[in-house]
Amino acid sequence: MITQASIQIIDNANMVHELDTLFKPKSIAIIGASSKELSIGNVVIKNLIHYNYTGKIYPINLKESEIRGIKAYPTIFDVPEDIDLAHVIIPSKFVPQIIEDCGKKGIKSVIINSAGFSEMGEEGIALQEAFLAKAKEYGVRIFGPNCQGIINANPEYNAYCDFTFTFPKPGSISIVALSGGVGAFIMQSLFDLDIGMRMYASNGNACDISISEVLKYYGEDEGTKAIILYTEGFRNPREFIEAAKLVAKKKPILAMKSGRTEEGAQAAASHTGSLAGVDIATELIFEKTGILSFNNEEDMCQAAMAFSTQPIPKGNRVGIITNTGGPAVIATDELVSVGLQLPPLSQKAINILKETQLPEATIGNPIDVVATGGGIHFRSALDVLMNEENIDSIFINFVTAPFTDTDEVARNIVEVNRLKRKPIICNFMTNLSIDRFQTTAKILKDGGVPCYSFPTTAAKALGALYKFQKVQTRNIGEPKKFTDIDSSLSLPKGNGTFLPSSDVFKILSAYGILVADWRIAKNTDEAILYANEIGFPVVIKAEASSLVHKSDLGGVAINIKNAGEVKLAVDRMKLKFKNEELKFLVQKFLPGGKELIVGVTAQKELEPLIMFGLGGIYVEVLKDVIFKLSPVTELEAEEMLSSIKASKLLDGVRGQSGVNKKSIIEIIQRISQLVNDFPQIKEMDLNPIMAFEDKTIVVDARIKI
Amino acid sequence: MITQASIQIIDNANMVHELDTLFKPKSIAIIGASSKELSIGNVVIKNLIHYNYTGKIYPINLKESEIRGIKAYPTIFDVPEDIDLAHVIIPSKFVPQIIEDCGKKGIKSVIINSAGFSEMGEEGIALQEAFLAKAKEYGVRIFGPNCQGIINANPEYNAYCDFTFTFPKPGSISIVALSGGVGAFIMQSLFDLDIGMRMYASNGNACDISISEVLKYYGEDEGTKAIILYTEGFRNPREFIEAAKLVAKKKPILAMKSGRTEEGAQAAASHTGSLAGVDIATELIFEKTGILSFNNEEDMCQAAMAFSTQPIPKGNRVGIITNTGGPAVIATDELVSVGLQLPPLSQKAINILKETQLPEATIGNPIDVVATGGGIHFRSALDVLMNEENIDSIFINFVTAPFTDTDEVARNIVEVNRLKRKPIICNFMTNLSIDRFQTTAKILKDGGVPCYSFPTTAAKALGALYKFQKVQTRNIGEPKKFTDIDSSLSLPKGNGTFLPSSDVFKILSAYGILVADWRIAKNTDEAILYANEIGFPVVIKAEASSLVHKSDLGGVAINIKNAGEVKLAVDRMKLKFKNEELKFLVQKFLPGGKELIVGVTAQKELEPLIMFGLGGIYVEVLKDVIFKLSPVTELEAEEMLSSIKASKLLDGVRGQSGVNKKSIIEIIQRISQLVNDFPQIKEMDLNPIMAFEDKTIVVDARIKI
Repeated sequence: MITQASIQIIDNANMVHELDTLFKPKSIAIIGASSKELSIGNVVIKNLIHYNYTGKIYPINLKESEIRGIKAYPTIFDVPEDIDLAHVIIPSKFVPQIIEDCGKKGIKSVIINSAGFSEMGEEGIALQEAFLAKAKEYGVRIFGPNCQGIINANPEYNAYCDFTFTFPKPGSISIVALSGGVGAFIMQSLFDLDIGMRMYASNGNACDISISEVLKYYGEDEGTKAIILYTEGFRNPREFIEAAKLVAKKKPILAMKSGRTEEGAQAAASHTGSLAGVDIATELIFEKTGILSFNNEEDMCQAAMAFSTQPIPKGNRVGIITNTGGPAVIATDELVSVGLQLPPLSQKAINILKETQLPEATIGNPIDVVATGGGIHFRSALDVLMNEENIDSIFINFVTAPFTDTDEVARNIVEVNRLKRKPIICNFMTNLSIDRFQTTAKILKDGGVPCYSFPTTAAKALGALYKFQKVQTRNIGEPKKFTDIDSSLSLPKGNGTFLPSSDVFKILSAYGILVADWRIAKNTDEAILYANEIGFPVVIKAEASSLVHKSDLGGVAINIKNAGEVKLAVDRMKLKFKNEELKFLVQKFLPGGKELIVGVTAQKELEPLIMFGLGGIYVEVLKDVIFKLSPVTELEAEEMLSSIKASKLLDGVRGQSGVNKKSIIEIIQRISQLVNDFPQIKEMDLNPIMAFEDKTIVVDARIKI
Repeated sequence: MITQASIQIIDNANMVHELDTLFKPKSIAIIGASSKELSIGNVVIKNLIHYNYTGKIYPINLKESEIRGIKAYPTIFDVPEDIDLAHVIIPSKFVPQIIEDCGKKGIKSVIINSAGFSEMGEEGIALQEAFLAKAKEYGVRIFGPNCQGIINANPEYNAYCDFTFTFPKPGSISIVALSGGVGAFIMQSLFDLDIGMRMYASNGNACDISISEVLKYYGEDEGTKAIILYTEGFRNPREFIEAAKLVAKKKPILAMKSGRTEEGAQAAASHTGSLAGVDIATELIFEKTGILSFNNEEDMCQAAMAFSTQPIPKGNRVGIITNTGGPAVIATDELVSVGLQLPPLSQKAINILKETQLPEATIGNPIDVVATGGGIHFRSALDVLMNEENIDSIFINFVTAPFTDTDEVARNIVEVNRLKRKPIICNFMTNLSIDRFQTTAKILKDGGVPCYSFPTTAAKALGALYKFQKVQTRNIGEPKKFTDIDSSLSLPKGNGTFLPSSDVFKILSAYGILVADWRIAKNTDEAILYANEIGFPVVIKAEASSLVHKSDLGGVAINIKNAGEVKLAVDRMKLKFKNEELKFLVQKFLPGGKELIVGVTAQKELEPLIMFGLGGIYVEVLKDVIFKLSPVTELEAEEMLSSIKASKLLDGVRGQSGVNKKSIIEIIQRISQLVNDFPQIKEMDLNPIMAFEDKTIVVDARIKI
């Protein structure tokens, strides 16, 4: 019976995607094909042949009649059939004309390997714009320029449209990388680890087809099980967020962004040209969209090995089986560090193990089957852990002790691994130059057991599987839309200035945020009047558009207790600032709360970042702050409170009372709504906000528009 | 001319060391030799033969006349010649007798592979003590029991006294590991990286010959260039510190201590038995003695590769040469993260590079010679960096672009590397399954260039070389001996109690530490009298031996401004505590300083730890504290101040004044002297000490003896 679901799958499989001519070309023209060995125009053809490309190759060369044994044509117009994809490997100045030709010929996708465009200054930018205009006119999609190309390792295509030198076997990991150099060594690393690859894309200047578009394409590709992504920044971060949100929960995206130090970012700028948009926000984008972020490319590749064969664990509870002590200690350290737990075994499990293990074995978690333990001992431990309800994943340390039948151990691991019920990760310690152990390794490898050479590396890989489980189950929810906002509020256009305090407080009040009671006084008498209205003690702050860091300049007087002190403070400020427009902000003084900060930083091409942390002088001293990309949901705001280092302070310590966390969480969300409503806000600091047991009140704030 | 120095070296080389019979045995008896394949008593003989052991092998077996083709003897007494070393592979209960036999035969070193001793409870402990007594009586040194053994890869010996399966080629790295499993995979990892090994030792229960003793032996071995050490704790940390101090500045010691999480420590306890002594102090021991600490065993092995061939850089300034963009960005990030700097190139260097590099090259630091750059381009960049005064080391990213003569590039790198003037680390990105690139790799390998597969891994290795340079040049100096101490001070024996405040303050004063002026009052009148003497405002604290956490219990009244308030406070405390022996500590109230903490924790078998950090409630909330192992020198005390996260606070921020750091540094040193003078001090907290611009004063303190 054909069900609705199966129809959909069939439809999906037959659906033609715009990028199919790029990733699944039935025919490829190489414009700039060359008979010169080691030239890119020759290497690309050589690679297609070497990789057994299943489609047709059309070398385009004005003079040669054949290249590498394949008939060549003077121009694409001389090719008698349709062409899906063209490689362009000619000097940059000829590219606009060639793109027009491709359009006329009906070629849908073009990989421009040639350099000499936006990465080379004005002249190059003009050329890039010229060929892009032609591409738009004719509906040609451009991959590159200044790029490597793509690879599709699916045997149906074997499309090696690239000049690199690694020939991966087919698999389920797809790679997209901004840098060809990094993409290539990631591909090589998978190859060295004997992990198959699905697709590869390295798009250089990325003037048309973006990383985001490739990411979505991989997301829709049924053969792609996990994705590796490398970038140094995003030209269009919003587009990326959209794409990542679609894909990241369905398939693990393992990503690395370099240029995380100032020096690294400089090095990045020097080779990719200016990448507009985000820098520090990239990690926040990864977090928000559920991308697994790595800052070590080797860890990323090693984790990919686990994703390529293992199921995702249901939780963070791991059982360890080991036949050697020290490596289990190292593994335990790392497993715990990445958030996994080692629950004790059930009495039932202990009873079974006591009957089945050697007398020297240690029954517990880890289970030490000892070096003399054989296949049956590993098997009973594996079976026990597979049946333990409290265990979500299995970590194995397997050293090939010379006095055991290691093949038998491997066969038992493989049999249990085939069930695919819980992920199994194996730290396999052996000497592969010994034939006997090569056999053991092959049994594990063929049985789909991911094998690592170090306990820490293996533990990190299991940590990555668990992290993806958290990504899949984490639901940040939708940002709350507060409806008690004063909708009459309007803000002037951004002009790079700070708003007067009175405006700032009005804006906060309009958004339902508590502000310490305040008035603006023009003179001493008004200041005394207002102080009485507000109730002592008060704070007095000098107000003039030129004053920003008031407290550093002596423009703030705190804890004013009576009219006499008001007069003194006002007189002193008058004397100090001698400013015609000087006014005086009289505000309720609120000592004894915990000083916190909520801040906002606008981002080019991206939503503003919201910051929360310890306020007052501790902002600078401790930098104990957390950023999130807005809009911030309630769950995210809660996470901000619990992730600062001083989060204990909010709960109250040593007799001190805690704060009203709910009110802080609400302020963060209201600020998030405010800055999303008014994109002209460039910068905002509520510092400090005073958090009390019952409520939280803003006592100082500034807004730059 | 034979100088004094050269005589010493000759003497040293000929000197006979007690452990020579263990590491350089001329003859080995295998007591428990077996003809059974895969048994340890057979594998050890097989390994000795396979590794071409240069000495004589004497299998000892009551029944067999030969084992693996070698004449066997019923007992060691039947062996006609002297024996240097014996392997003991017999049931534990026979071991005491065999050790006595060994003693009688004049065997100086014994490796006990057999298990069944201290790791197996009381009976085992008794057996271990029994054979140890015999060993002492006859002057036999014991390695093990429950251990693997040793390996000496020096071709003069080829002594493979171990049952493992990795056969390293000779080299300059020596390994000592508590866990045989970890030792074995470290050895295997060096083998996989094609790094030679010098010596190997894994001593299991370590009942006699300790890791410390082996470490000293490696330190004196001229062929050992660097040492890898793995442990899960120390039985005798003082002995280890002595050994490490002797060796760590001469030769890099790369070390890893596992069991750093609670769960990991538990796992360690379950397989090594209880290791008395330190746990959290291990990192501090490593720091104090100059050991390079790793928490990732792969990083440690990769770093060893750099140490095995490269000189130590003179400083932290690195020049990068790359022929691909992205990997240079990744490398830059990591290099900067581990403390290296990328200085700009001199004008002279830039001029040379402009003349010698391709037009597409990026001239700067990194120098991007681009993928089409060949041998001459790499060479000119290398020569320039070798001659730059501001560059201490060279990092190379070398991808084997198919369109360049990669052998020529490799040859140029090797020629410059042979100079050994500055360390060269190479991230070599290639496909070793391609013959052409295998040749390139061999050129680099034979030329002693350490090659890595990932930029981050390579950068970490260079970071380790730099770290050793810091170790070699760091001189913490000797602990200062303050002579203005009141030498009449005495302390009772430790009894697990807290000293009364009056005693605590007297002790601090005796050690020249400023304490806020104080008196002990018996009643209200005395309290008022003393408050007047001290000067208001004061603090009043309830004093009785039963009161420890006074402030939590309402036993502290601060900011008392006059006699009336004194009376009120005293009356309230009387009512609250209803304690016959209740007294009242009247002390100067000192608001406005920065609250800091200095603390002490005693360690079993080791000097106490000194702690410094943010005081008051921030101790618990932020845990912004630094520990050092006492005695703490002036430099170390300075490091403590500069390494807390809030160190900026001490310098003063946003108009706030800084503190008198010198006075804090002195307090730390005086406390260090105090606890070294009085080992009965179990615990001490000066919390808070109030730091002002001019001085630092202790306002509260407790001491447990």
